Parts: sequence; C-alpha cells; structure tokens
Amino acid sequence: MSSKNAFYAQSGGVTSVINASACGVIETARKHRRHIGKVYAGRNGIIGALTEDLIDTSREPARAIAALRHTPGGAFGSCRFKLKGLDESRREYERLIEVFRAHNIGYFFYNGGGDSADTCHKVSQLSRKLDFPIQAIHVPKTVDNDLPVTDTCPGFGSVAKYVAVSTQEAALDVESMASTSTKVFILEVMGRHAGWIAAAGGLAGNSSREAPHIILFPEVEFAETAFLKRVDQAVKRYGYCVVVASEGVRHPNGKFLAEAGSRDAFGHAQLGGVAPYLAALVKERLGHKYHWALADYLQRAARHIASKTDVEQAYAVGKAAVELAIRGENALMVTIKRISDSPYRWKTGEVPLARVANREKMMPARFISKDGFGITAACRRYLGPLIRGEDYPPFGKDGLPRYVRLKNTPVKRKLKTRFVL
Amino acid sequence: MSSKNAFYAQSGGVTSVINASACGVIETARKHRRHIGKVYAGRNGIIGALTEDLIDTSREPARAIAALRHTPGGAFGSCRFKLKGLDESRREYERLIEVFRAHNIGYFFYNGGGDSADTCHKVSQLSRKLDFPIQAIHVPKTVDNDLPVTDTCPGFGSVAKYVAVSTQEAALDVESMASTSTKVFILEVMGRHAGWIAAAGGLAGNSSREAPHIILFPEVEFAETAFLKRVDQAVKRYGYCVVVASEGVRHPNGKFLAEAGSRDAFGHAQLGGVAPYLAALVKERLGHKYHWALADYLQRAARHIASKTDVEQAYAVGKAAVELAIRGENALMVTIKRISDSPYRWKTGEVPLARVANREKMMPARFISKDGFGITAACRRYLGPLIRGEDYPPFGKDGLPRYVRLKNTPVKRKLKTRFVL
Repeated sequence: MSSKNAFYAQSGGVTSVINASACGVIETARKHRRHIGKVYAGRNGIIGALTEDLIDTSREPARAIAALRHTPGGAFGSCRFKLKGLDESRREYERLIEVFRAHNIGYFFYNGGGDSADTCHKVSQLSRKLDFPIQAIHVPKTVDNDLPVTDTCPGFGSVAKYVAVSTQEAALDVESMASTSTKVFILEVMGRHAGWIAAAGGLAGNSSREAPHIILFPEVEFAETAFLKRVDQAVKRYGYCVVVASEGVRHPNGKFLAEAGSRDAFGHAQLGGVAPYLAALVKERLGHKYHWALADYLQRAARHIASKTDVEQAYAVGKAAVELAIRGENALMVTIKRISDSPYRWKTGEVPLARVANREKMMPARFISKDGFGITAACRRYLGPLIRGEDYPPFGKDGLPRYVRLKNTPVKRKLKTRFVL
Repeated sequence: MSSKNAFYAQSGGVTSVINASACGVIETARKHRRHIGKVYAGRNGIIGALTEDLIDTSREPARAIAALRHTPGGAFGSCRFKLKGLDESRREYERLIEVFRAHNIGYFFYNGGGDSADTCHKVSQLSRKLDFPIQAIHVPKTVDNDLPVTDTCPGFGSVAKYVAVSTQEAALDVESMASTSTKVFILEVMGRHAGWIAAAGGLAGNSSREAPHIILFPEVEFAETAFLKRVDQAVKRYGYCVVVASEGVRHPNGKFLAEAGSRDAFGHAQLGGVAPYLAALVKERLGHKYHWALADYLQRAARHIASKTDVEQAYAVGKAAVELAIRGENALMVTIKRISDSPYRWKTGEVPLARVANREKMMPARFISKDGFGITAACRRYLGPLIRGEDYPPFGKDGLPRYVRLKNTPVKRKLKTRFVL
C-alpha cells in the first residue's frame, strides 16, 4: 500500500469525550483509505511512539470504534510527558522519526491541550528541520477550556454540564434541609488557572436568589471579608448559600487557598482542598453548618451526563483533523468557530499551531460580575450553548453504561533498539 | 366535606426520589376524594405541623404534582427534628393534636428513615393514648438502606446507581492515565453506620481485576497493613487501584478514620474525610500519586442518573401508604417485598411500626467477601436489580433538567397560639 499510515495519540488529562475525537479520526480515516493506510494509536500517548508500542486500530471492528463516541477516559491510554525543544529533546525527536519511518507513518494527530499543541507544533517542523516528511495536526481537548483561538475546547462542555446539573441538584437538597441542617454547601471544581468550569456552575441559577450564590474564580483574588459577608447575606436572605469554588482560587499573596495550612493525619501540608478550607472558614467565622463536595475525576469522566454539543464538537474536530491532513495541511490546530449565539451555530476551522503554542485563555473580565462572585449575561450567552443537549450512552440491562473496552492489539515491532524514557 | 384531610411530611436527609413518594401520596389521595379531603404538607417537615405552617397541595396543578416524580430534594422542605417519647415530648404531641384537630387532619403520612419511623409510631398511638383519632402510615425513605424488614429503601437504589456509574467512569479515567500520573483513586461515599452505598460501588466491576479493587465498609474494622498491601498489589498487577470507601470506616479502636488527626487551617480537627486520610496514608507509606473525590450531597441529589427501579418503588410506597390508610390501617410502614431476583419481581407490603422502630439493618456478613474488601455473589444478586433502568428527568432547551418548584401556598392559620420549638 502506497498510502502513509497515521499516528494518533491522546495527551494529558482525559475527558468524557476525548474518545469521541478518536472515533472521529479513525472513522474518517477509514473512509479515505486511498490517502491514509492504517491508524496506529500510541499506547499511553506519545510514550507509545517513543517505545514503539503502537496499537493497530484496524483490528477493531466498526462497532467498537463507533462505541468510542460514548465511552469516557482514554481508550488507548494517555500520558503526561512533554517533549522540549528540538535541541533539548533531539534524542526523542530522532526516535520518533525512527519509529514513524519504520511504520510508514506520515500523519501525526495529537489530541490534547496546550502542552501537546506545543509538541505537535514541534513535530510539524520535523519535515523541515530533520528532513522527515510528516503532517502534524492538533486535535484540541481540554476540560479547562483554556486553548486560545478556538471558541471552546472539546471536553469542557460536558464538564460544564456536569457542574451546572450537579450544582442545581445539590442546591435543591440543601435548600430543603436548611431550616434545621446544612446552611452552606461548597462544591469544589477543577480549573487551576482558568475559571471556566467554576463559571459553568453559574448556569444552575438565573438570578441572585438562585444557587449558586457565590462563584470563586482563579482570576479573582480571594477577598475573605467580602466572601464571608456574602455567605452570611445569602443565609439570611434565602436560608442557605451554595458556593462553587475553583481549585485554583488564590489569596492576594498569590498562595492557593488549597495550600493554606491544612495538615493531613501525618502532619504534612495537605494538597487539594479549597472546599474544606472555605468550609472551615465559614464555620470558624460564621458558625454555619456546612457540607462540601469535591468532584475531582468524577466531573471529567461523567460521560453519562455529557453535553450533546460537546460530543458533536469532539467528533467533529477529529474528523476535521483527518480532512485537513488529506488536503495536505501541516502545523494546524482544528478549532471550533462560533457563527451565532442564538440560534447557536458553529463550524470547525483551523489555526496555525504557531499561534496556539504557550498561550492560555483566561476568563475575560467582561464575563465576571463586578463584585467578582458571579457571571455576567455575556458569559451566559457564551456558556449556554455549550451544555445544550443530552447524549446518553447506551445502558445495559444491569443498569450500567455500555462502555467499550478495545482489544488494543499491538503492532509488531520492527526496530531492534529499545528506547529508555 | 366530611372526609378527613391528610398531613404529609418529609423527614431527615432528602433523596433524589423522595418527591416521587410525595407524588405517589398526593396523586393517589386525589383519586380518593371521598376518603381523603386535602393533602396538607408540613413546611420543613414535622416542624410545619408544630408551627401550624402547612402547605395546601391542592393548590398545585396536576402537572406540577406529576413533575415531583422527577425532581430531587424535598419539595416541601425537610428537617432533622426528632420527637421523643409521649412523656418526654408531651407538649409536642399535644400541639400536633391541636393543629390536626384545627385542620381536620385524620391521616398522617411520614416520609423518612429510622428516626421518623419511630416518630410515626408514636403518632399512631395518639388515638389510644391521647384520645385523638389518627391513622399514621410511614413511607420509607433513606439512602442508607438501613430500615429493617423492607427489602430496600427508596432513595438507596439511585445513590447506588450513581456510585456504581461514577466508579466505573472514574476508573476508566484513572486507568488511562496511570502510566505517568495518578495510580490510586479513592471515592468516599455516604453511609456512616451501614456499608450499603459503598457496596454498590462494587457493581462497577465484575472481577478482581476490574475497579473497584477495594471497598471499605463500616461493618469491617480498618486493617491498615492489609489495605496497603492490597493497594500496592493492585497497582503492581493492573497499573492502578480504585478504592470506594464509606465515610463510616473505623479503626479497630472504634474511632472513625475521618477523625483520625487531620487538622484544618485553623488547627481544628477536621470533620469528614476518609478519602483524604486514606490518600495521605497511601502517599506516606507507598508513595503512589493519588486523587480522591468526595461526592457528598451530589450522590443523593443526582436525579439525573436515578434508578428506574428506585423511582418506581418510591412512587409505589407513597401510593400504597394512602391505600392502607383508606383501608383503615394504622401504625404501619410500607415495605418493598422481593418476589424473585431473576427476573426481578417485587410488590409493596406492610409491617407494623412496632417491628421497625430502633432497628438498623447492617450489611450481613454473607454480603462481604472473606477478605473484607469486596462484595460476594449474594450481594450482587441483591443489589443488581436495584440500579436497573434509567429514568431521566426531562431536560430543557438550555441543557438543564426541568425540575419543578411548587408554589407551596400556605394553609390559613386557625390557631391563635404560637408554638416555640
């Protein structure tokens, strides 16, 4: 077969829809066999390329690939492994070329966030800098929604929906018990640098009397006095207070609240935990009974409550990446372009990777209410469409989702050399 | 109207399906107007009866009452307020009679767990002991699944489904990242005295290689060395380890793990947190990278992933309570009777409240595997049917569930006296 094979890898924290992008890549490649031979996936991401541990996706039946669309997690394994510049990591890039050459790989599809966009950009330069012909296309993915240029990042919409729905549900619970029990409920969500996920909690209510009464963003310095006043006000006015707090909230001195002095049973500074910190603060200063939840991985794995919009976009960026490659493109990231808010319309686009690398998209100031504790109408217009629609996975008779587990058949190794990471 | 009115109240921690029981009570009562006049709900539970703060459910349109079936939380408010014996709390019981007499109430439907079964039992004795004619029927509800006699408790099946699905989803996430990132994931779930909810996590996997690899029950003394050995074994064999831990796990000395020495930022012993305790232990002794989640109220409010079986049973116990009252019964709790495991068949039954009060149903030893870290086949046969079927709430165009908010119109007060709690 004269057509080149493709390499696909998942990178960084997985999401409930990253496999939908894999599905988009593989199904689209299968429709263009004249251009693309086989799609090899890296076992545990780019590490699979370095160690020549490739998975032959052509061994999976069509129905298994189709089921990726509704299966959370990373079906081929992902990793946190960042390649540095060509000069610093020359050994790694040369190994990639060795493996790609051995397996006739001419296309590189990298499915990840900011760090992997950077790696993808470097791989896209191999043709020119190390004289190896490859087309590298980045498939965006991150629950953090912090990639530049693209209107949104696949993975985010589903976390946003999970957080909005969970906030709404927990608020109903707290409200019904508040007369004699819990008065303050704090939900800690992901987002160390950007407050997009916390902002999504704001979709649970439409007015200041509805939960969440307070949102804490990493973009806004934590104002303890104002926070406590607002909590107390909500308890007095509505009987209870619901807070959605980003894990990345910081004190004015720059320190994370989560690092603010709590100690585990062994006396070590405890990692994580904005929610327990805020809960302790509320108890200490206001004396209100509290509860808190920390959704952690549950939020980014919750395929059962994925956003239909997000699933469709995740699939579309995978499909578009293959189509760009077939058109001969290189060094691009697929983007989501918003055409209109209402009715919500979008299409895929593309942007040179050089414009993506090393830029993080924070919440703009116009999305955060003046007091710093809520979201604006503009933010609602932006976020609203991203959580729209349901896309339930099929459930079995046992009451559990039918998530697929692939065979992940290894590709026979061709190289004698082993690569030590 | 010669027929007596009914009083309905929600008690204790709410669930994602307690309103389905309210729906069953109200819809059934509306079909029997010859026997039951109006259904008055207590605002914030039994407190509403004591303070003569009644809600007239007849002011709600049929479609609002129907929507209770898919709305989590307690639509009329619930409370934690336990009446003591007739002698100790005579003032309260006399006040109940005063309010019931003023509003022509002859039926008392109390929707709660063990404590409220006890209160309901005492109210059922008012006819005889304080010469006030009333029929009291208990409508079972508790996520803890610890009521005796009944095969299961409405509310539990939906938490069980949430925990099983969440464990399965988070496990896919952890497994895909384990080569370079988190190796141990701990999900803390409710159940201070009984391990039913933790056990439900076990439904996520079918063999020892599938997550969860370890379940920690309140019924089993925490064995630190064996636990750490098992964690390490799972990491070595499968690359990762998923733990589902009940909040009620105790050390051999009887102390909760959650109280085992962690300190908040103010130096106070931290309340709650088996998961962070176990995470710190794993890090200290094994050095593995960990993550943990604490679902807290999210688990018992998650109507979006409710079990169809549970919703149907929650409705059925409400309906049956009204039917028992119409038949002239008193001092009963409605039960769920299992007819067969496979195919799963059930019907409602009833039990004298005298047999229910002050008895907690723990996990039987035959449901816990010999090593104390998992569930047995018998436990799977019991739990399996309870999470079966999906019963999604309707979603709006905005991507959020259409949960109903009732008008909760107050009934005009008839008493001059005020009652101070």
